[in-house]
Amino acid sequence: MRDFGQDHSALALNTASLGHNLDGAGAGWSSEQLIDACAERGFGGIVYWRRELGDRAQQIGERTRAAGLAVAGLCRTPLMVGPGTPQPLEDEVRASIDMAAALGAPVLTIVTGGTEPGTKGLGPSWDLLAERVAVACDHAARQGVKLALEPLNPMFGGNRTCLFTVADAYEICRRVNHPALGIAVDVYHVWWDSRLTESLAAAKGLILGYHLCDWLAETSHMLLDRGMMGDGVADLRAIRAAVEAAGYAGFCEVEIFSAEDWWKRDPREVLDTMVDRFRRFC
Amino acid sequence: MRDFGQDHSALALNTASLGHNLDGAGAGWSSEQLIDACAERGFGGIVYWRRELGDRAQQIGERTRAAGLAVAGLCRTPLMVGPGTPQPLEDEVRASIDMAAALGAPVLTIVTGGTEPGTKGLGPSWDLLAERVAVACDHAARQGVKLALEPLNPMFGGNRTCLFTVADAYEICRRVNHPALGIAVDVYHVWWDSRLTESLAAAKGLILGYHLCDWLAETSHMLLDRGMMGDGVADLRAIRAAVEAAGYAGFCEVEIFSAEDWWKRDPREVLDTMVDRFRRFC
Repeated sequence: MRDFGQDHSALALNTASLGHNLDGAGAGWSSEQLIDACAERGFGGIVYWRRELGDRAQQIGERTRAAGLAVAGLCRTPLMVGPGTPQPLEDEVRASIDMAAALGAPVLTIVTGGTEPGTKGLGPSWDLLAERVAVACDHAARQGVKLALEPLNPMFGGNRTCLFTVADAYEICRRVNHPALGIAVDVYHVWWDSRLTESLAAAKGLILGYHLCDWLAETSHMLLDRGMMGDGVADLRAIRAAVEAAGYAGFCEVEIFSAEDWWKRDPREVLDTMVDRFRRFC
Repeated sequence: MRDFGQDHSALALNTASLGHNLDGAGAGWSSEQLIDACAERGFGGIVYWRRELGDRAQQIGERTRAAGLAVAGLCRTPLMVGPGTPQPLEDEVRASIDMAAALGAPVLTIVTGGTEPGTKGLGPSWDLLAERVAVACDHAARQGVKLALEPLNPMFGGNRTCLFTVADAYEICRRVNHPALGIAVDVYHVWWDSRLTESLAAAKGLILGYHLCDWLAETSHMLLDRGMMGDGVADLRAIRAAVEAAGYAGFCEVEIFSAEDWWKRDPREVLDTMVDRFRRFC
C-alpha cells in the first residue's frame, strides 16, 4: 500500500468539490484559476465535468498539462438506461467519449441510470445496459478512452443507477468483456459494503478510478452533503488497501458534493484542507 | 409461493403507514379506530409502534385479538450502537421487549443504529452489536418474544444502521447464534440487492418478518417518501418468492412512510388501496 503521509502527488481534484458539477454552485472559479491553484499545491491531477468544458476541452487539457498536472478523468456519460436517458442516446454517449479524447482524459465515468421504465427490479435494465455499454466501448477504444462503471449508493436506485456495488459493476464488465471497460470505486458509494474487499479482489485489474470523500454520520441531503476525508465514518485506509490490492495504482480523486459546507468556503481553503486530510487520513 | 390474488388474509397493517410512527403525522386515528377499520377489510394482522401504545400495550393487544386480528409485531428496540444509542441502553431494550410481551407481539424489530462514535467502518460496531443483541436475546426468550434484525438501505448508514443487507444481518445471527434471533426483510431496504436471493437462501429459517411498500423511481426524501406497492420499481413478486423459499410463511406487513402523499389521505382510502394492491402486485 502506498504511503501518502509525506507525498500527495497521487492526489487529484475532482472539480465537483468546488461545485463545478452544478450551475451556480461554488465560488465560480475558471478552469485556469483552479489549474494554477492545484499546481501551486502539488496536486497530481484534475478530473473535470463536461458542463465546465463547453467547446474548450482540448484547450483546457493542454493548459492542465502545461501546468505540470495530469488530466485524470472526465465526468461523465449521459445516463444510459432508465427514466433519465437522453434521446438520441448514442449521439450523446459518443459526444462524451469524444470530449474525453479531446481533453486527453484516460477515463470517462459512467453513471448508468436507473430502472428502465415499464420494468421492475434489475434484470431488464442490466441487459439493456450491457448492450449499450458494449457499443460505447467500441467507440471509446477507437478514441483511446476507457469507460469506468461507477456503482452508486442504493439510495440512488430508481432514477440514477442500476449498479449498487462493485460486484454489480463487475458483473456488467464480465458480460461486456471489453478491454475498454472497468470500474470506478467511490468511497461515498461503497464504504458500507461488507463484501467490498472480496468484490474488489474478484475485479482485480479492472479498477480505473478511486474517489475520495467521507460519509458523514448525520448526512442531511441525499446528493449534496458529502464529507471531507476524516470527518465521517468510512474506513478510508482499509478501502484504499483493498483498492490497491485489486491492482489500482492511479490517482485518488477527491469528489465532495457539499452545497451547505465546502462549496461555501474559499476554494483555497478547500484545496489546502484536501492536501492535509489526504496525507493524514487517506 | 402463496397466491394472494383472491386472499388477503396474510396482509398486515404496519401503523406507520397511517403516520403512527411520528408525532403529528397522519390523520390521528386511535388504535381502536384502526383495529376496526382493518377488521372490516379482512386484514390478518397489525404491527404497532411503541409510541402509540404508551401504557396500553396489553389492552390494545387484547382489543386487536378480540376483533379477530393478530398482533403481528412491534416496532422497535432503541438503537443499540452508534451515536443515537440511549443511556442506559439495557433498560430501554428490556422495556421494549416487555412491551412486546404485554402486547402479545411475537416479534420485535431491531434497527441497529449506526457506526459507534470514535470508530470507522463496520467492524467495531458489529462486535458491539453482537454482544448487546446476545444479552437482549436472553431477555426476549424469557418473555416469549423473538427479535428481528432489520437491514436498512445504505443511505441510512452512519447514524441509523450498521446492517445494510440480508447477508449482513445473517452474519450477526450467525455470531450471536440464539434461537430468539432472526431477520426482518423490508422491500424498501433490500430491493436493489442483486445477491438477495442467495442471501435469503443462506438465512433459511431465520426470516421473521416481511415488509411491503415500493421504491419510487423519483424518491424525494430519504425517509418519508416510500411508495405504495405497484407504484415503484421493486420486483415485489420475485422478492416474496425468495423470502418464501427461505421458509417464511407469515404476514406481509405494509409499512409506508409517506409524509407528502399517503399520510395526507383518508386512512380508509389508504387501507382500501393496500388491499387492492396487495392482491394485484404482491
